[in-house]
This record gives sequence, structure tokens and C-alpha cells, in this order.
Amino acid sequence: MKSTVGHSATRTEGVAKTSGRVSYIHNLAVPGMLHAKLVRSLVAHATISSIDTEAARAVPGVHAIITAAEVLTVLPDPYFGPAFHDQPVLAVDKVRFVGEPVAVVLADDVRAAEEGAALVDVQYDELPAVFDEVAAAAPDAPVLHEELRPGTAFADLKHLKGRRDTNVALDYQLRRGDVDAALAAADHVVTHTFTTPAIAHAPLEPVVAIGQVADDGGLIIHSATQNPSIARLEVARLFGLPESMVSIRTGFLGGGFGAKLYPKLEPLVAVCAVLARRPVRLALSMEETFSTLTRHASTITITSGVDADGTIAARRVDVWWNGGAYADIGPRVTQKAGLTAAGPYRIANVAIDSRAVYTNLPPAGAMRGFGVPQVAWAYERHTDLLARELGRDPVAFRQQNLLHRGAEHHTGTVLADTANEEVLAELVQAMDLDRPIERSQGPVRRGRGIAIALKAVVTPSTSGAVVRLNADGSASVQCPTVDVGQGSMTAMAQLVAETLGLPASRVRVTHADTDTTPYDTGTLGSRSTYHAGNAVVGAATAVREELLEVAAPLLGAPVEDLEVEGGEVLVRGGQGRISFRDVMVSRVGVQAGSITHAHEFTPDYTAPDPETGQSPRITAFWMTGAAGAEVEVDTETGQLRVTRLVVVGDAGRALNPELVRTQLTGAAVMQLGMSCSEELTHDEDGQLTSPGLGFYKVPGFLDVPPIECIVVEVPQRDGPYGAKGVGETGTFAVAPALANAIADATGADLHALPMTAERVLAAIEATTEEDQP
Amino acid sequence: MKSTVGHSATRTEGVAKTSGRVSYIHNLAVPGMLHAKLVRSLVAHATISSIDTEAARAVPGVHAIITAAEVLTVLPDPYFGPAFHDQPVLAVDKVRFVGEPVAVVLADDVRAAEEGAALVDVQYDELPAVFDEVAAAAPDAPVLHEELRPGTAFADLKHLKGRRDTNVALDYQLRRGDVDAALAAADHVVTHTFTTPAIAHAPLEPVVAIGQVADDGGLIIHSATQNPSIARLEVARLFGLPESMVSIRTGFLGGGFGAKLYPKLEPLVAVCAVLARRPVRLALSMEETFSTLTRHASTITITSGVDADGTIAARRVDVWWNGGAYADIGPRVTQKAGLTAAGPYRIANVAIDSRAVYTNLPPAGAMRGFGVPQVAWAYERHTDLLARELGRDPVAFRQQNLLHRGAEHHTGTVLADTANEEVLAELVQAMDLDRPIERSQGPVRRGRGIAIALKAVVTPSTSGAVVRLNADGSASVQCPTVDVGQGSMTAMAQLVAETLGLPASRVRVTHADTDTTPYDTGTLGSRSTYHAGNAVVGAATAVREELLEVAAPLLGAPVEDLEVEGGEVLVRGGQGRISFRDVMVSRVGVQAGSITHAHEFTPDYTAPDPETGQSPRITAFWMTGAAGAEVEVDTETGQLRVTRLVVVGDAGRALNPELVRTQLTGAAVMQLGMSCSEELTHDEDGQLTSPGLGFYKVPGFLDVPPIECIVVEVPQRDGPYGAKGVGETGTFAVAPALANAIADATGADLHALPMTAERVLAAIEATTEEDQP
Repeated sequence: MKSTVGHSATRTEGVAKTSGRVSYIHNLAVPGMLHAKLVRSLVAHATISSIDTEAARAVPGVHAIITAAEVLTVLPDPYFGPAFHDQPVLAVDKVRFVGEPVAVVLADDVRAAEEGAALVDVQYDELPAVFDEVAAAAPDAPVLHEELRPGTAFADLKHLKGRRDTNVALDYQLRRGDVDAALAAADHVVTHTFTTPAIAHAPLEPVVAIGQVADDGGLIIHSATQNPSIARLEVARLFGLPESMVSIRTGFLGGGFGAKLYPKLEPLVAVCAVLARRPVRLALSMEETFSTLTRHASTITITSGVDADGTIAARRVDVWWNGGAYADIGPRVTQKAGLTAAGPYRIANVAIDSRAVYTNLPPAGAMRGFGVPQVAWAYERHTDLLARELGRDPVAFRQQNLLHRGAEHHTGTVLADTANEEVLAELVQAMDLDRPIERSQGPVRRGRGIAIALKAVVTPSTSGAVVRLNADGSASVQCPTVDVGQGSMTAMAQLVAETLGLPASRVRVTHADTDTTPYDTGTLGSRSTYHAGNAVVGAATAVREELLEVAAPLLGAPVEDLEVEGGEVLVRGGQGRISFRDVMVSRVGVQAGSITHAHEFTPDYTAPDPETGQSPRITAFWMTGAAGAEVEVDTETGQLRVTRLVVVGDAGRALNPELVRTQLTGAAVMQLGMSCSEELTHDEDGQLTSPGLGFYKVPGFLDVPPIECIVVEVPQRDGPYGAKGVGETGTFAVAPALANAIADATGADLHALPMTAERVLAAIEATTEEDQP
Repeated sequence: MKSTVGHSATRTEGVAKTSGRVSYIHNLAVPGMLHAKLVRSLVAHATISSIDTEAARAVPGVHAIITAAEVLTVLPDPYFGPAFHDQPVLAVDKVRFVGEPVAVVLADDVRAAEEGAALVDVQYDELPAVFDEVAAAAPDAPVLHEELRPGTAFADLKHLKGRRDTNVALDYQLRRGDVDAALAAADHVVTHTFTTPAIAHAPLEPVVAIGQVADDGGLIIHSATQNPSIARLEVARLFGLPESMVSIRTGFLGGGFGAKLYPKLEPLVAVCAVLARRPVRLALSMEETFSTLTRHASTITITSGVDADGTIAARRVDVWWNGGAYADIGPRVTQKAGLTAAGPYRIANVAIDSRAVYTNLPPAGAMRGFGVPQVAWAYERHTDLLARELGRDPVAFRQQNLLHRGAEHHTGTVLADTANEEVLAELVQAMDLDRPIERSQGPVRRGRGIAIALKAVVTPSTSGAVVRLNADGSASVQCPTVDVGQGSMTAMAQLVAETLGLPASRVRVTHADTDTTPYDTGTLGSRSTYHAGNAVVGAATAVREELLEVAAPLLGAPVEDLEVEGGEVLVRGGQGRISFRDVMVSRVGVQAGSITHAHEFTPDYTAPDPETGQSPRITAFWMTGAAGAEVEVDTETGQLRVTRLVVVGDAGRALNPELVRTQLTGAAVMQLGMSCSEELTHDEDGQLTSPGLGFYKVPGFLDVPPIECIVVEVPQRDGPYGAKGVGETGTFAVAPALANAIADATGADLHALPMTAERVLAAIEATTEEDQP
């Protein structure tokens, strides 16, 4: 049987995308819809003293202006969020960051809405603001929220719920062994602090949604969202509706990377549609998307105690996550990135404290890697610095301490299917590290560096799918995964095709619509191939079983002797065969009917002990990503040139090798931006000073170095055909590999991202001559 | 447990419909779409000698003009149809009726398309035409089709396939006993011939569709269709696509009545979208809808042999169905109405011949009643005439011969669940026939009449459904039934609510979309409550079973002790209870996940013997409808006034009594139109002389008489909660009851519909004085 899994099937939407015809939500129009424009806060922290909408109302084409006062007529408690119920649909009495939505203007067209929005006059009484995550966590900081309001998924935060005196929304901790004693006993104790800036996701399709009231009084929201099920949950909760009465519908997304995770515009467009009795479309600009969600800035301090033989005996990690003004999914990032913050190493004594901190900046949430790029930046810089301190080769030092398959992670979970050793071995071989590097003696210095990191997939989470065999033997699939550009439509079609014995071209996968697709935690955290993949394979398997039961008497053979191939049921090793269509016709008498089955996949999970973070099953699977870089650094200007980038990731099994490579290299390029150029900067008043792609520099094609991509296939035992997710793996190790290479080239140690020429030059200048190689 | 079945739940879309906001397909717009206008044949039968599109192309805004030449570049074999593959997407070389689509103009707006269409110059060479069904069936008639092309569902028509010399597309026959011998032996032998005209469905939302090419190269067609699954089948077959690659999407329909059954505009808009590389919308006018599909005109001859004791010993029925130029589903109507053409009576010797005949008129197909209103008109007029011939009371004569439950129908199928006797008894009681009627002696005469008829639901057919329990305990249902105004969304929600123990307000039923809803034969022939109802109940039952399995350990009770009520699982007779939500949370750890199950329902069926029409299981269920009328007839003008109309129908069980009454009375009003005023007339060239609602008179509110509606509930053994369909039942008996009442009032016997004042007056004038009562 020709397998469709393991082959690089062409993307189903490839032609439509490359010819510019693909149907993004951004291109959608609903008859009769109004266009919305937000009025945003100009100050970082203030009470609202007045809102004057008179001038705006006079603009021709302006239909309505909605402020919190109107929102409250529809939603008595208008605070939403996937983790905490802290974010108002529109600012109520108070604003907490520059750019916070204060009012929305609805008009017949976008220009009238924009003109109206510019004329809404909001007066503020300013309050003290705090922007730094460490300062905001201090007891004397200005407090943003009147009361901490964790949602039902954070019911265990009893000690924080209702607190009125802190910006720390969540304080994750992990305790293993006795860190204090082990540090006291260690031969070397080294501490470093690292920082990362706030980063923009910058999807080329900005955040967009259309709200409308359904014929049955429920709500329909077309949204470029990565997790419609959770948007539905929150909108239903806000409106007091059954979940069944809220439809969230998606299409292809023009990128997501986390910017479109969890409710964003959905509650607001729904409120607008209810108030205006018309569909309402709100599409953000890129600058507005920058002020909607960011990747957390962070400060990370690591202290390690290392024995003389190179064994890492103890590690303490403190992480402060700059969550911005509203929690979004930051508390979950704080936990999940926190739990791997000690790195992919065997360490007997570990203490981790990871804190979600409110500040007067735009909310921070999930972004490709879910916090791992931040902690990996820190622990892999730290690893190289430790090796140098010990006089050890950084590769050998890593190999000595690396967590191998079967070892127990510092969370207490055994690494059953990880590929740490294979990934590191492939990287070392590809980098040819035994080959001496040709170091220039001029101002341009050459160096190389590596890094490796480990991530735990978010758990618990769940995905359902429905697979239907049509009467002509083709298949229709309702899979809730959102194709954000990763190619999930194609991969899911391949999985169903493989299971049913069909060409992938006869399988169509629909876009997610909460009316018709089963629940799914979301297209996030590299979870879909494994979770939704298992769901579609499970549903397809049930369809195949029913098909074979119908076929067995037609072929005069028992079910266990039958197999499927090329749209036919065959007797294994025998002569009989019958097309799926003919099997279907036998059921009804004509080409009619369908065989439909659903399957839901929820991996096992054991909640960690709240004091120690220990759990025998803390995650469904682990992902390992490594990177190696060769660089040239101009020591007179600080200019960095990446001459070679090697990215290694484990895919379990590559269902579609080309898609896997695209994911790994795309993630690496994205991380190159965070490493070298991207930073959401703000002034002392919290005003964004890098608004839009003209100021905020994502890598262009000319910035992309030669990339080698290596896919390691160590099968994931319970993955669909052995597969696991790879969407984030490429992001993990790029930044520390580059910094380690810069240090190798120049002796300059970088502790902060991005590694701009200015920052590299400053580090070089701060480095004494004897530190240089 | 408060039952939701049996209660008149308010329609889910009621507010949206009454406030004018409901989202009909006619209101849908797709970004970038072009508008289409058809160029239609001006002659009834001709070869096309030339098509000149030059002037039309010059119209500003005209984008393209498509003729058969262009269609053939996309579809090598552009002939479609649910029964026969005989209808070209656009006329190829030849036209066969006035109004046949010859070309289509695509433009930026409707006005430009119309202007362009008016300028397309088509030249014809006319051919002899035939319009009458009996004449067209004769050997010397002009033949319409080069070759008879029955589709795969009519594979048994081997004797007709490929025939080039006949307009008879299908010749159904039923033979039981020895009719010739029985007629020869009978005491009375009586023959009558009756006719019915072509009728328009006249849905207030005309036929409309939008075609577009999907991102994956497949097709998406938004269509006001009553059976998306079969539209998909035909479009996929035409284009050589897997069925999975064709989406047919529906919404609420502004009426259907059969006008929107089977492919209509779907193939054409798909071709247009492919050729234009833009979405294309085509919306017909009411006049165009009249030329798209009609109810068959018919000629029906019945001969009965009756014994002296009143036993009907033998009956021969000959039916000619005027199928128009293309078969549409006419051959199926010919079979299915043919098989009950001898009426609801015990007759030992029956011969029925039912012929689908091509003529040069617009195609005829299904319309509310599927041929039964035509045959019932004939056999129930015949019954009264027979009774008069025998000097018998027409009610007692019917009661003597009526098929009771458990008797064998003339098809050989036992009437297991029919309610003939209850329906007739309820009618007789409501009409109070023992009360003497006060007959005026002036020009206005009073009379009363009754009729009763039986229909077999179309079989085999199949329906699937998917039911999902959301994590908050609400339910989402994918049911393929199209809500054409009958209230199926509401009824299906009630069935799921009843089965799951939920308020119906927590259940949302989606519109049909072949991507996401399972296969369904269609919203036709009163089949949905029974078929789709069984499918949704089956799926909901599976969901409930899984829910109880999860709940059992939580409640510490075995599954068999559990029941559902009000969104909770209860221990029967015990103390324990848990909300659905909490059961769902127990599965994943948070409010997440869903329980999804599919179910398909296909009733048993035995194909009839092709020679005799005999089958032990020819239909899934039978429907009985009766009507009684009291009338006043002005014998000087022929003017008819219906002073009282009683409609009785069996519902099995009325899931929503108000919806059942609305169906029965709505059908009766529709049939009042066919009875008294509606007729698609044409001149000797086949030109429609009643184009649009200004000429073609459907009953207005002032025409509607006082109607009493009686719902008989004899449970359908295998129906969902005992229910069966009622959508057509009200149509069956109205016309003969009215004619029987006119005869009772005036002695005038009508044999043709509609019973216009002119026709009534003519019948009165033809009646000799001694025939009058």
C-alpha cells in the first residue's frame, strides 16, 4: 500500500495562496455589516474622567459610538480572559496601558469610523505606572488591579484570588531535592541574569473579527482565531449563553504565532452587533495588533552549583514575566515555561520560581514557544558560561549532563519518548565541531556556538474530530485545527487518507466552526499534530472498521482478513476486492448515505503537586530543538553576520517532511528576529516607540542566513503514526546559539536580547582583552 | 421529567423571521461575486442556428457571456438530472421548451447582466412541438430526446435506456389479481377520466445559488436547495470531482414545496465560477422560477368494477404525467404516486400503468404531495361518482372498502401503522354528516363533501446526523434537514432535547452543509421528521449513553440506574445528581472537550417486482390525509365559496402540535389554490400565459376559508417518539372534497382542475335538471 504519510504532499491551498485567492477572514464581508474603529488610551495608567462623543457622532456615516457604559447594558460583568477574568471589553473607568480600547466607533465604512474615532475626546486623570516586571513585582509598586480574578481553570490559586495588593498574578514553583544544601556543597556556584524584550507576533494578516446576531438569537463570530473553542467558551460565559448558541468560525489564517490565541476582538464585535443590530467588522492595523498582545519580556536569574567533575548538582531559577496590563494566557506561560526553566539536564536539586507580573504595558501571552525561547535563552547562555567557568568544552559539558530517554525530568516525569541525545548528536555532526574554525585576525571575528532546549507540550488538553466516508468513497473531515500557515489541512488529510486507504486528494478537511467541529483546546503549542492528529486517526479508524464490517459479507471474508487500499477493500492475500463506493451502495441500494464517526483524544495527565511541581505525568510529550550557528562579528561596529545556521528538531515521525522542514526553518527565522533585531520599545510614559513594521524590524529575505534543517525521527509511541508537533521547536535554541557563537568569536558575553549591533559592540567594548579567545 | 416532545415550542428563528432579519440564501453576498442573468429560449422546440453575443459584450459592466460552447470546455458531458442525465447546463444545439436557458451573462451588477442578456441574439430553426401528455406518449408524436439516458438510480430501466423513438421515459406498472376477469364479472363497471393542470410551487424566495471555487480547487455552492446531498452528488459527477470536494451550503429557505429539490442552478453557477474565476450569483425571478420546475399536469383514467354489495372488486388506473422537457425527478413521481393510484381501498384486482412523458413544456418534478394530489383528485372524485352510481352514501361506501390497519395494500405491503379508520372517523365526526344540510333554494346552493387519501413515503432513503454535547452541557446538532419553513430546526432541537434531558433552548441545530452534515436524501416527501428525526435521536442516544458511562462512577451508581433531566444526570429514585457540565469537566480536568456521536437511519425496503409492483416492504410508513368541505356555489356565476374546511391528518405523534397544525393547514391552503385558481397556462406555441403572481393566482388571505385541523395520533412504531411526517398530508384530499361538495350542492361533476368559476358554471350548465339534488 502506497503510504500517504511520510510523503511531502502539496498543500491543498497552495495554488490559492500563491495566486492570492485564498479566503482569509480579513477578506470576508457579511451583507449589511458596519465597520468599527477603536478609540485607544493615550496614557499608561489613569482613571477616565470623561468621554465626549459629540463631535464623532456628527461625522457622516457614523452609526454609533460605544463605550463601557453601553457595554454594561449588555454585559453586566464585561471582564474576560482565558486565565483571569480581568480584561474589560472596553475600559471601565480606568485604563492600564497605552493603546487600551476605550471606545469603538461604528460606521458605514472604515474611513468614517476612523474619522469618528479621531474625534472622540477622552480625558484622563493619570496614575503612577510601572513597566518593569521585577519592579512591578516588588511590594511598593503601583498596583494595577483592584482585585485578582483567576478564572475557573485557575481555581487552585486560592491564595491569590481576591488579592488587592499585588501585581503578581501567579507564582509557580517547583522544588526538587535540597537546592540550598546542594549549592552550599557545590565546587562552583555561578549566577547569571538574562533578559528578553517584549516581542510582536506580527502576523501579516492582522487581528480581525466580524460579529453578528444569529437567526436564533445566538451569536456568530467570524474570527481569525487560533482557538475557536475557547473564544466560544468566553463569549458564552460573558453573555450568559449556552456554548451551543455561539458560533466561532475561522478560515485560513495569515499567520498567528499566538497573536490570535484566546479571545481578542470576539467579545467586542459581539457586543457591537447586539447593540447595533447589524453585523460589525473590526480589523486592526499592524500597530494595533502590536498593542493587543505581545511575547513576554522577561528577567531570568539562574544560579547553578557544579561539582568538579562537571555534574550540575543544583540549580535555582527565578523568572519574572512581564505580563502587561491583562493576564491573557500569561499565567499558563508562567507555569508551563517555568516547569522546564532548568533546562534539559539531569539536576538532582532544582528550585524554580516563575512569576506572572502585571505591568502598565500591552498584555503579553502565548507566542511560538510559549516562554521556552526566553528560558532557553537564559539557561543555554548560562550553560556555555558554566562550561567556560569550568574550563570544559561546551558540547561535552552538555553531553555529560543531558537528560537521556528514560531519565526523570526535574518535574518527576520520566522522559519516555524524547530525542535529546539524537538531536544533540545530529547537531554536533552537522556542525562538524572537531573541524577547527578559521578565525580571522582582522576586525571581523569568526565563531560558532550551539544550544539545545526542551519543551513540554501543554497538558491537559483535548481535541475531537469527525470523519465521514461519503457514498462515492471520498472522505470529509471536521477537524478543529486552524490552518495558520503550518499546513494542518494537508497533514490531517494525509492522516485520514493513510488510515482509510485513500488518496489525500479525495479527503477534504473543513475549517473550524464551533457549530460543527468538536472541541479543541486550540492551535497552539505544537499540540495539533499529536492531539488533533490522534483524533482524526481515531475517527478514521472507526469509519474503516464500520466499512470493513459492511464489506466482509460482500467479499465473503472475515473482517480481520480485509484491508483498505486505493479506495477499495481487499481480501489480504486473496482475490476479492470491492470499491468503497460499491460497499456504500450495498447499504442503501443507491449511491447514498455516509459512515460518520467521531473521536476525541485527551492524553493522560497528573496535576503537579502545588508546592513541589512534581508529577509522574506532567505532559503528553516533549519536544527537543537544537541550533548551531557560525557567525562573523565586526568588532568595530558590532555588526553580526550569520554565515550558517543549523536547526535540528525531533518530529517523532515527519508526516509531511517538507511541511516539517518549513516549520523548523520558519521558526528559526522568526527566532532570528527576536535574537537580533526585534524589540517592542516604549518610552518612559509607556508609549510604544516601535509602532509597526517600519520601526519594528522582522527579518527580511536578505537577513535570512543559509539554514540547514535536520529532522530527527524518534517515534512518539502514542503519536499518530509516531508523529509529534514541530511548530515551535525551531525557535528554542537560536538565540543562545548565536550568543554563544558571538562569545566564541569575540569573547563578548551578551545577557540581553536583541543582539543589535549597538548591544554587541557595547559587550565587546566591555570585554577585557584577556577574555577574548 | 418535563417532556419537550409534544409541546409547541416556539420556532428558534421565529423572531428573526417576523422581524425580517433572517438570513435567506437570497440575501447572501460573497465578496467579489459577479451577477448572472439567463438568456432563455423564446421557442418551444428548435435547433439553435446561431448565438450573437457581440452587442451584449459591449454593455459596460458585462464580464463574460457563457453559452454551451464554453460550458463544454469545463464539462465534456454537461447533462444532469436526479433521475435521467438529460438536462443540459445550457442548451446544447437544441431547445426543448420556452424559457430553457441558452446563455448566461455575467456582470458586475444585476442591471448590467439584464441589459446584456436582452442583447444576446439567438436564432432558431423551429421543430414540431408537443404539449399534451397523452398526445406526447403516442407513437406518432415528435420525439424530444435523441436518446433516453436514465441515471444510475434507474439502472433497472434497461428496456428504455438508449431508446430514440419515444417520449415515455418510464412506464411504471402494478399488477395484482386478474383485473380483466374481475371487471368482466363485476355488477357495475364505471370509467372516468380526470385531469390536473401544471402548477407552480411559487416559493416567495425564488430559486437562487452562488457558486465559487474553493481554496483547495473544489467547489462551494450556496444554494437555496432542499436536498444538498443530491445537488452535491450531481455536481461532483458532472465535474468528475470527489463528492468531498463539493460543498453545498444552505440556510433557511423562503419556501420550497419541491421547487428547490434536486439540482437546479448549482451546476450552472459552478461552471460560471470556474470560467469567470470569480464567485457568481444567479437569482431567478418568480416568472423564471415558474419556467424552472412545475407540478405535473396529468391525465388519469380510472375504471372500477363494483359488486352489488358495494365491494370494489377491480380497478384499472392509467396515468399520464406531463413531465415537460426534462425528467427532473418526474420518473420517481411516476412510480411513487403510481403505486398508490388505486386509493386507500381493499381491492383484490388492481392494474396500474403510470407513465412519465416528455413534452415541450418546462420540466415537472416533485411538489408537495409527490403526485398524490393528482391521483387522489381522480380516485376520490371517482369514489363519490361510484357511490352515486350504486346509490350508496359516499361515507358508508368508503368505510366499507377502506384499508384498515393490518390489511394488505395493493402493493402487497401490509399497512402496519396506518390510521385510515381513525382519520376517516375523526373527519366524519367533525363534519357532523348526520346533521341535515340547509340547502338554499335560491341561486346559491349549499353542499358538502369529503375525501381521503393515502401516501407511501419515498423509500429507500437515508438520513444521518451528528450530535455533540458541549463541555457546558449544551448540545450542537448537525442535521441535514433543510428548514424550508416547516420548522424542522425547532422539531429536531426538541428531539435532541428530549433524548438528552435538556431544555430545547440549549440545543442548536445547524444548517445543512455537505462538508459537515451527513448524507440526507433530502427535505422532501414528508420524510424528515421520521428519517432525520430517527437519526438525531439515534445520535443523541449514543451521546447520552457515553455521558452516563462517565457519570456512573462519579455518582457511584450503575448506568442502568441513571437518567437525564434538566441538564443533570440523576440516580433514579436516589439522591445523587451531577450536572452535565461537571461530568464533562471530570473527563478533561477543565470545562473542555465534547462527546460526539453520529447516527444514520435507513429503513428496510424491498424493491418491488418490476412486472407486478409487489413488495412486502415497499415503504417505511404511510400517511393518511382527509378533508371535508362545506361550500356555497352561485349557480348563476359558478362562484365557489368555501364556508368550512376540515383537514384531518395522522402525525404518528405530534412532536410540536402547533407546527403540525401549521403544516396541515398550510398544505390545505396550498391545495385550495390548485383546486380553485392555480394553473400554469400556455398558448399554442408553448408560451407561458400566466407568468408571475400577477397572472397566476395563489390564495390570498381573503381566500382562506375557516379551517379546522384535527391531528390524529396513532403512534408510528419505529418513528422518533412515535412521530411521522405531516408536510404533505394536508394536500391530499382538499380538491376532491371540494368537487364532491360542489356536486352535492349543484349536481355538477367536475373532472378537471382548477375549479374556476368559469369551469364550475360550465359544469352546472352541462348538468341536466334531473341530475340536480
